[in-house]
Amino acid sequence: MLGSNQYGKAEIRIVRVDRRPDGDELTDLNVSVALRGDLAASHLTGDNSGVLPTDTQKNTVYAFARHGIAGIESFARRLAEHFVQSQDGIHEARVSIEQYLWRKVDGRHTFEKTGETRTATVHHGHHGTQTVSGVKDLVLLKTTDSEFHGFVQDQYTTLPETRDRILATSVNATWRHDGADPRTAKQALVDAFADTHSLALQQTLYSMGSRVLERCPEVVEVKLSLPNKHHFLVDLAPFGMDNPNEVYYAADRPYGLIEGVVRRDGVEVPEEVVWTF
Amino acid sequence: MLGSNQYGKAEIRIVRVDRRPDGDELTDLNVSVALRGDLAASHLTGDNSGVLPTDTQKNTVYAFARHGIAGIESFARRLAEHFVQSQDGIHEARVSIEQYLWRKVDGRHTFEKTGETRTATVHHGHHGTQTVSGVKDLVLLKTTDSEFHGFVQDQYTTLPETRDRILATSVNATWRHDGADPRTAKQALVDAFADTHSLALQQTLYSMGSRVLERCPEVVEVKLSLPNKHHFLVDLAPFGMDNPNEVYYAADRPYGLIEGVVRRDGVEVPEEVVWTF
Amino acid sequence: MLGSNQYGKAEIRIVRVDRRPDGDELTDLNVSVALRGDLAASHLTGDNSGVLPTDTQKNTVYAFARHGIAGIESFARRLAEHFVQSQDGIHEARVSIEQYLWRKVDGRHTFEKTGETRTATVHHGHHGTQTVSGVKDLVLLKTTDSEFHGFVQDQYTTLPETRDRILATSVNATWRHDGADPRTAKQALVDAFADTHSLALQQTLYSMGSRVLERCPEVVEVKLSLPNKHHFLVDLAPFGMDNPNEVYYAADRPYGLIEGVVRRDGVEVPEEVVWTF
Amino acid sequence: MLGSNQYGKAEIRIVRVDRRPDGDELTDLNVSVALRGDLAASHLTGDNSGVLPTDTQKNTVYAFARHGIAGIESFARRLAEHFVQSQDGIHEARVSIEQYLWRKVDGRHTFEKTGETRTATVHHGHHGTQTVSGVKDLVLLKTTDSEFHGFVQDQYTTLPETRDRILATSVNATWRHDGADPRTAKQALVDAFADTHSLALQQTLYSMGSRVLERCPEVVEVKLSLPNKHHFLVDLAPFGMDNPNEVYYAADRPYGLIEGVVRRDGVEVPEEVVWTF
Repeated sequence: MLGSNQYGKAEIRIVRVDRRPDGDELTDLNVSVALRGDLAASHLTGDNSGVLPTDTQKNTVYAFARHGIAGIESFARRLAEHFVQSQDGIHEARVSIEQYLWRKVDGRHTFEKTGETRTATVHHGHHGTQTVSGVKDLVLLKTTDSEFHGFVQDQYTTLPETRDRILATSVNATWRHDGADPRTAKQALVDAFADTHSLALQQTLYSMGSRVLERCPEVVEVKLSLPNKHHFLVDLAPFGMDNPNEVYYAADRPYGLIEGVVRRDGVEVPEEVVWTF
Repeated sequence: MLGSNQYGKAEIRIVRVDRRPDGDELTDLNVSVALRGDLAASHLTGDNSGVLPTDTQKNTVYAFARHGIAGIESFARRLAEHFVQSQDGIHEARVSIEQYLWRKVDGRHTFEKTGETRTATVHHGHHGTQTVSGVKDLVLLKTTDSEFHGFVQDQYTTLPETRDRILATSVNATWRHDGADPRTAKQALVDAFADTHSLALQQTLYSMGSRVLERCPEVVEVKLSLPNKHHFLVDLAPFGMDNPNEVYYAADRPYGLIEGVVRRDGVEVPEEVVWTF
Repeated sequence: MLGSNQYGKAEIRIVRVDRRPDGDELTDLNVSVALRGDLAASHLTGDNSGVLPTDTQKNTVYAFARHGIAGIESFARRLAEHFVQSQDGIHEARVSIEQYLWRKVDGRHTFEKTGETRTATVHHGHHGTQTVSGVKDLVLLKTTDSEFHGFVQDQYTTLPETRDRILATSVNATWRHDGADPRTAKQALVDAFADTHSLALQQTLYSMGSRVLERCPEVVEVKLSLPNKHHFLVDLAPFGMDNPNEVYYAADRPYGLIEGVVRRDGVEVPEEVVWTF
Repeated sequence: MLGSNQYGKAEIRIVRVDRRPDGDELTDLNVSVALRGDLAASHLTGDNSGVLPTDTQKNTVYAFARHGIAGIESFARRLAEHFVQSQDGIHEARVSIEQYLWRKVDGRHTFEKTGETRTATVHHGHHGTQTVSGVKDLVLLKTTDSEFHGFVQDQYTTLPETRDRILATSVNATWRHDGADPRTAKQALVDAFADTHSLALQQTLYSMGSRVLERCPEVVEVKLSLPNKHHFLVDLAPFGMDNPNEVYYAADRPYGLIEGVVRRDGVEVPEEVVWTF
């Protein structure tokens, strides 16, 4: 029996240049499409009469880009609506976009890549349209104002309690919303990370999610996935030295991984979010 | 409002050696733990009295390995049950393991890494225990016996129909089961890929999932994520040459991505699978 | 016969915090050490009496960090000199450092990683000390002011000439110097990329190297490795659209790779640079 | 002043299928070309009249593949000779190829990627042609028969001596030769790693290089780059357990890096090897 299934073209790399008298603008995207619908025939018998090829999806993305890309949310929405409306057998479309940010360096037409990535996923289907935006791989670190103690002790405990540690994470955040400004949301994440005196990364997570809800009324829920990028104080005593919270070893693996959703009171979670989110 | 949340230690790298008179055995694992339960206090106030630190989880994994690792499914299960049973506030545990396979090359104690990866995820909670096993990044290619035609044509179509193409994919497969042999499941995937005359990668996917269900009675459903790793015939005509399906360009991006579940008739999907699967 | 050989500890990850009343400073490094000398005994008979273990090298790096890290060049130099001076059998040391730059976001003790990487390699040996600094993965793009024509045509040519294309690269630059400011060198690279009307990436490379020599009198030579990150105009004609240099496909592979050295007139290349550079 | 420079197309991905009555053969390559010669004009003035575009180099690789690929060494040689002989201004060519090995799984036309990579670099220039072949990322581990003691002790030493440890590495080996069988060379590397009772990874390196020279008379020198992939015994004492060399932590970074050349007695190193090797 065929269960849930989807297909589409992934990682369509597109760069659009808006050429303007006062300097060019650059939009650098990685677009992925996933479609759902009446696709049983292709699976069961290889009858492709309901299949819009992934190659055509790619062409569609490029053609739609010709008309301009006002923002990744609206571009994803236009595409998702197009696939559902133009194809009888397609009932749901999810379009996910990563945007790589560049900074203009000469006031004219030269750009330097910044390392910042924004994301948007639009899911369009039976029950309407949902938009989830986000930031990816936003690496934050605070050198103090982080404690961790009072935790469960069992026979496998060796971790000492600490009143002062480095706290570092690589923020992967997404928020379900209607029209929120991504810069405001990102700034809320950074500010909450910075000004929360942390007793646990869980507490910082909740503070970050809450701050986005406070600053962005258009946001209804925030999902955060926060790896705890451990920094261990190096023991310099064998060399006759102290180490007053100065020299750390930055570990790769293993790492803690703290994940959670912070939701505006009273908001219901639509069933489809299970798929998009 | 705090929504669903989980935390744990990720990517605990563990190598166990079983030293035996007739030659050593090597078990090379990457273990990740995720726990759910009464964790609101840590998020809301930084009260960690219900938090088993991720460092302790790591220690537990190493300590449990001392008693032997019969298989990744049973090791994951022992760990998941331990966390739920030993911690009052932990109600669900998911333990995910990647196993990297090695081949003994000298009959004694020297091994070469093979590149094969097996996976297992065990979810233990209120409603019992579920086991999902899998293979990851199993790259398969067939040089013929693959067609793609009869698909939808619209204004953005440029793809020609083909009666003979290379079909290649990197199989990411997981199956929910109770006691199936992973070698049998992997062989079923490879055999179905090889002997299915493919009219669409969707058809190959369904054939692969069905074959696992046929050969492994312990399996109730199979989930497949199959990137279509495109190989394009190079146009050699500008150089006065034909190209009778011999010289191809292997593309990186974009790629098709075909995903689906094949389920044994009559099987119900437990609610928790949404989380584990 | 044993030929040239070296050994050392690679990728020592170190984070140092300078805690100050007016806000903390963060130094985030990846340090690699390579030593050369009288190491034949270890290779031929396993006699390690001349081997300073790589573990000890790691400890040394952490211990030296305790005394402060004024800059990556001076830190590398102190380490390289130490290994040669303290070990009779070690005649040459190369210390290579990557520095990951962070930006303070709260004026106090919270930082965001910027994505910028600086490098320094110091080689200390018989003939003195050489310092090579650099930047890595600096991604630049200009939307116009780049042409490519007048090239060789042969039987395998299909590339059309162009008078206007996107030019993009990921700059990997190193410069041999004594005391140059890395920000000045980086700015010279960016400025030359931006204001050179490019007829070939080779021309841009030479302009970038020359600019560093002009602006930084302490620099004697510059080595550049510039992948040509191709952006191909998408053909939208099949969809009834023109494409006036607006919509591009950003390709991954293959890519052009243009590499060269620009040297101050009259500078001799010391023999050892072959090893360090 | 323009110093040494080169350019070419990198990472040309090519898959060739040889279709035969008794089953197909698959050749999966990643080809990179680098050319040197009279290229000053392109750098200094953007005059490209001596530049064979990297796009044309790519076309040439595909066209040459049409005539068959007997082996990566001969394919690289044909290409390198072509570029130098057909272009007046090109005096040296280096062609580097990675080959990804596949295993036929159905006796006909289906293949599984093995994870093994072979390499070849051919340098063709004034003084003739040199061939360097290799293997890449061959991960080997032995569970015993490895010691490390008798090393230098200084004020930064904390490493205890050991008479029994895991030894693991990821072999990157290249050998300069004329006609050696890569399978024989690889087997020599594996065998020497396995049967050398190791007192240092340096000793294992020398043994591996020597074994290739013994078994392959066509090889004149072998270069090895061997990361010491550390496996640390986990301290289980806090949990009331011993750990008789059974449970290890596999570390990512830092790692030792041992590199060296083993050369047949009396062999001279041609100057050009500095560039190719």
